[in-house]
Amino acid sequence: MGKIVVEVMVKPEILDPQGKAIKGSLARLGIENFVDVRQGKRFTLDTAGDVTEADLEAARQAAQTLLSNPIIEDVVAVKAVTEDQA
Amino acid sequence: MGKIVVEVMVKPEILDPQGKAIKGSLARLGIENFVDVRQGKRFTLDTAGDVTEADLEAARQAAQTLLSNPIIEDVVAVKAVTEDQA
Repeated sequence: MGKIVVEVMVKPEILDPQGKAIKGSLARLGIENFVDVRQGKRFTLDTAGDVTEADLEAARQAAQTLLSNPIIEDVVAVKAVTEDQA
Repeated sequence: MGKIVVEVMVKPEILDPQGKAIKGSLARLGIENFVDVRQGKRFTLDTAGDVTEADLEAARQAAQTLLSNPIIEDVVAVKAVTEDQA
């Protein structure tokens, strides 16, 4: 079995209210280390066999068409990973 | 400026309806490469200076207390990244 990770983040120029809310909550917890927080999505796509280039291409296509909204989000990574990185 | 990425996924034994829905949609798009799909969360935490061990420790604490629900989610990564990996 193989595994591909797709990572999607809100475009830097787009306001991320969720990230702002998290930053505020962290400060209330006494965690002041961070000047900005942003939240995105992470997907794992499992393949029956080892990951092939065709699988990676299918994951890139899925990332652009279904897993992200190209207007407000960037696909920041599409990569095969080992089981323990998953 | 430094950047830490925190990655959170639903525990393997927990049903992921969102992932199931995505898998179904992918099949309707003709993308049949994947036997399972799971969705999680990805956070970027920015620091004013370079990332220190104290920042990483704060990120681990944030991951356990605020960025994940330990009952149904696993924190799969807390790592400093370079700007282009963000």
